[in-house]
Amino acid sequence: MAKSARVLYEFTAEAGNNELSVKEGETLTVTNKVKIALNPTWVTYSTMSVFVLFVACVFSKVKTLFCFYHLQASNGNDPWSTWNSNNNWPSNPEGTQTGKSAADPWNSQMQAHPQAYQGPGKNMVCLTLILHMGEVGPVWLYPESQLDCVVADPKKGSKMYGLKSYIEYQITPNTTNRPVNHRYKHFDWLYERLLDKFGSAIPIPSLPDKQVTGRFEEEFIKMRMERLQGWMIRMCRHPVISCSDVFQLFLTYKDEKDWKMGKRKAEKDETVGVMIFTTIEPEAPDLDLLEVEQKCEQFSRFTKAMDDGVKEILTVGHEHWKRCTGPLPKEYQRIGKAFQNLSSVFTSSGYQGEATLTDALTEAGKTYEEIARMFAEQPKKDLHFLMENNNEYKGLLGCFPDTIGVHKAAIEKVKEGDKLVAASKITSQEKGAMAKRVSTMSYALQAEMNHFHSNRIYDYNRVMQLYLEEQVKFYETIAAKLRQAHSQFTTM
Amino acid sequence: MAKSARVLYEFTAEAGNNELSVKEGETLTVTNKVKIALNPTWVTYSTMSVFVLFVACVFSKVKTLFCFYHLQASNGNDPWSTWNSNNNWPSNPEGTQTGKSAADPWNSQMQAHPQAYQGPGKNMVCLTLILHMGEVGPVWLYPESQLDCVVADPKKGSKMYGLKSYIEYQITPNTTNRPVNHRYKHFDWLYERLLDKFGSAIPIPSLPDKQVTGRFEEEFIKMRMERLQGWMIRMCRHPVISCSDVFQLFLTYKDEKDWKMGKRKAEKDETVGVMIFTTIEPEAPDLDLLEVEQKCEQFSRFTKAMDDGVKEILTVGHEHWKRCTGPLPKEYQRIGKAFQNLSSVFTSSGYQGEATLTDALTEAGKTYEEIARMFAEQPKKDLHFLMENNNEYKGLLGCFPDTIGVHKAAIEKVKEGDKLVAASKITSQEKGAMAKRVSTMSYALQAEMNHFHSNRIYDYNRVMQLYLEEQVKFYETIAAKLRQAHSQFTTM
Repeated sequence: MAKSARVLYEFTAEAGNNELSVKEGETLTVTNKVKIALNPTWVTYSTMSVFVLFVACVFSKVKTLFCFYHLQASNGNDPWSTWNSNNNWPSNPEGTQTGKSAADPWNSQMQAHPQAYQGPGKNMVCLTLILHMGEVGPVWLYPESQLDCVVADPKKGSKMYGLKSYIEYQITPNTTNRPVNHRYKHFDWLYERLLDKFGSAIPIPSLPDKQVTGRFEEEFIKMRMERLQGWMIRMCRHPVISCSDVFQLFLTYKDEKDWKMGKRKAEKDETVGVMIFTTIEPEAPDLDLLEVEQKCEQFSRFTKAMDDGVKEILTVGHEHWKRCTGPLPKEYQRIGKAFQNLSSVFTSSGYQGEATLTDALTEAGKTYEEIARMFAEQPKKDLHFLMENNNEYKGLLGCFPDTIGVHKAAIEKVKEGDKLVAASKITSQEKGAMAKRVSTMSYALQAEMNHFHSNRIYDYNRVMQLYLEEQVKFYETIAAKLRQAHSQFTTM
Repeated sequence: MAKSARVLYEFTAEAGNNELSVKEGETLTVTNKVKIALNPTWVTYSTMSVFVLFVACVFSKVKTLFCFYHLQASNGNDPWSTWNSNNNWPSNPEGTQTGKSAADPWNSQMQAHPQAYQGPGKNMVCLTLILHMGEVGPVWLYPESQLDCVVADPKKGSKMYGLKSYIEYQITPNTTNRPVNHRYKHFDWLYERLLDKFGSAIPIPSLPDKQVTGRFEEEFIKMRMERLQGWMIRMCRHPVISCSDVFQLFLTYKDEKDWKMGKRKAEKDETVGVMIFTTIEPEAPDLDLLEVEQKCEQFSRFTKAMDDGVKEILTVGHEHWKRCTGPLPKEYQRIGKAFQNLSSVFTSSGYQGEATLTDALTEAGKTYEEIARMFAEQPKKDLHFLMENNNEYKGLLGCFPDTIGVHKAAIEKVKEGDKLVAASKITSQEKGAMAKRVSTMSYALQAEMNHFHSNRIYDYNRVMQLYLEEQVKFYETIAAKLRQAHSQFTTM
C-alpha cells in the first residue's frame, strides 16, 4: 500500500552516493517497501551475507524515504495523550554526527541503523522501527551483520586533579574498531536513556550493581567488567537498541565535545516512554482484541513461570557453590590427611616390606588433597557461567511485568471503548485509533518475545554445553588421578 | 641341645601311621627339633606346598615327641605363682575327640594342630607353641595351608518349644567342608575361652556388638554375619588360635553331645591367663632386659600411634558417609529438578524450535538425579570396606595396652631382681628364671607383632586397592553419564 510522507527536515544528498535531496515541507510517496521474512535465530546471522545483496538492491531505491506513523486523537485526559498530540516527533535542532566507517558500505550502514545515516554536519532524520512477519510471527528487522563490542582494559582515571578516582573501561565496537573510554557512570547514563526511550516496549535489564566500597579491588573490577560486557552484548544483539542514536553515540563518539553534545541531545529526546509505539510500523493487518489479549496472557504466564524457574536454578546453584568451596573440599582434605597420617605411622613400625604400602598410601592421601582443591576451584569454571546467564535472565524477566502491565492497561481501555462511544465520551474514530494502537503494541510485544525466545534458546544451549563439558572434564580428571593412585599399590 | 621329656598321658599308636606308643611316666629324649625359618607374609602361604615335603619328612620322626617347659620357682607371694607351681599342666581326665578327616593326611594335620592329634577315644596330649627366628625376627610356626571358613546361611532357630528364638549361622571350615551351626551366644562363648587362654599374649578382638532389639532385621543379620565372618577369618589366620582345641571344637564338633562335652572340657582348661607363656618355647637365646625393654617400648608406641591413625580414618570416614548419603545427593537432586523444571517452562513457550533444547535440558536434569542416587549408594561399595577394616584394627589395637601392661609389669619385676636377691628375698636362681620368663614373653610379643604387621600390610593393601578401584569406577561412571547428557545438546 503506497504511503505519503511529509519531510520534516532538510537533507542534502552527497554526490555519487545514490542519495536524494529533500526540502522541508515536501511530500514524498513511498513506492517500494522492504518486506523481509526473517527468522531471527542465531542461524540467520550466518546466512545474512547471501541476503545482503538482495537488500542492498532494494534499499538503494528507498534509503532516502522514511515512513512516519501519525496518530490523530483528541482526548486530553487520556494517559496516552502524549501519543495523541500532533507534535509527536522529537525535535532535533542540534543534530548529531555519526562517523562513517570506510569499511562499512553505505547499504549495510543503512540497514544496521534504521535511523537515518547522516554525513558530517547534517541533521538527523527520524525513522520507523520496522516489524515484519517472519516464520515465527512478528519480528524486528535484523541487520545483516550483528553489532558486537569488547569491554576490556580497565584503567584508573581521575579528575579534579586526582582527588576523584574511578575505573575506565575500553569499549571497542566491531564496526569502527576504534576504542572509546567509559566509566561505570556513563553506562548508568546510557541505561537511563535506553530505559526512557525503549523501556515501554523492550526489556532493558539493570546494570551490574553500583558499589561504594571495594571499587578498586581486582576481583570486583574483573567481575564488573565481565558483567558490563554481558550487558553490552545483549544491547548489541537488539536490532532496535543497537541502531539507536544514543547507543551509537556511546560506542562511537569522537571526542569529549562530541560526547557532551550527544548527551545533551539524547536527554532532550521526547520520543520516550509510550511514545516509542508511535515509531513502530507493523507490516501486517491489525489484530483483533481477543488475539491481543491471548498473546498478552501467554507472555505474562511464560515470563512469570520462567522467572520462577530461573530463580530456582540460582538458589540451588548458590548452595552448590557454597558446598563445593566449603564443606566438600574440607572433607576430602581430611580424608587425604588421614591416609597420610596412617602412612607415617606405618613407616614407624620398624617392619620390613612396608615401603610400597606406605608410599602408595601417602600418594593416595595427596591425591585426595588434590581432589579437594579441584572441588574448590571448579565452580569458577562451570557453575559461574550458568549462574551469570541465569542472573542476566532474571534481570531481563524482571522488566516484563511493567511492559505487560502497560499493555494490559491499554487493552482495558479498548474494552471500555464501546461504552465510551455510547456515552459520547469518545468518537467512533477515536475508539478505532485506540484499537489500532493496542494492535501495534501487541505486535511490538510479540516481536520482543520472539527476540527473547530466540536469544534464550541460543544462550541456554551454549551455557548448558559449556557447563556439562566442564563437568565431564572435572570428573574424568578425578577418575584419572585416582587410577594413578590405585596403580601405586602392589597387585597381590 | 637335646631335651628330656616326661610323658603325662598314655598314647597308643595306630598301626601303619608311623606313630609311637608311650606310657605314663616314661622319659623321652627329643633328638630332632624342627628349625624353620619362616617369613609369615601372605606370600609364604602360596609357597607352602614346596615346604610340606621337607616338613613331613622331619615330622614323621618327631611327631610323637613333645616338649614341655617347666619353670621351677618357689615364691608363693609372686603374682606369677601359678606359673611357678609344679602342677602347671592342665588335667585332662575326660579327653576330647577330634574328628579325623579322610582328606587330611596325618602329617599336615599334625602341623596344623600343634596340639596332639588324637584318634577317636584317645586322651589329649599337651604341646608346645613353637616360635622360630624368621627373616623378620621371631615368628610363630605357620601351617602350610591356612585354615579358612565361611559363615553363611542365617536361619531362625528356636528352643523351649518356640518360646525363645535366635539366629543360627552355618560355619564351614575348609578342612572338613562339613558345616556346623552356631548362634551368636556360641561365638561369645568361644571369644571368652580364647580371651582366657591366649589373651595375655595374643590380641583377641571383640565380637560384633550384642544387640537386644532389631535382632531379626535383615540388614542387621547381614551386617552381623559379615562381621562374624571377618572375626572368624582373623582367628583362622592365627597359627596358635586356629590350632587350639577350643577353636577346632567350634569348627568341627560332631553333634550336640560332642559340643556340650567339649565346652565343659574347655571351661576347665587351667592353662589360662599368663600360663600361656609356659607353653611357649622360643627356639632362640634368651634376650637381655635392655632389648626386651626396647622392643616393648617400640610396640607400645606403634600400637598407640596406629590406634590414633585408625580412629582418625574412622571419624573422617563416618562424616564422609553421612555427607554422601545425606546432603550431597539432596543437592544433586535439587540441581536435577531445577533443570527439569526450567525445561517444562521452556516447553510452554509456544515458540518453535525448542524441542532439542528442552529434551536435552530434561535429560541433563535426570542425569543429575541419577548422580544423586549414585552418591547415596556408593559408600556401601567402597567406604564400607575401608571402615570395616579399620574397625577390626581398632578392636585389635585395643587389646594391646593390656598385653603390654602385663609385659611391662614383668620387666619391672626383673629390674627389682638384684635388690630382691641382695635382700635374700629370692634366690639368684629364681631371679634367673624370672629373666628367662620375661625373655619368653618378649619373644611371644615380637612374634605377635610380626604376625600383626604382616596381616596389616596385606589387609591395608587389599582394602585400599578395593576402595580406590571402586572410586575410579564411580567417577568414571559420572563422567560418562554427563558426557551422554552433553551430547544431547545441538552443536551450534
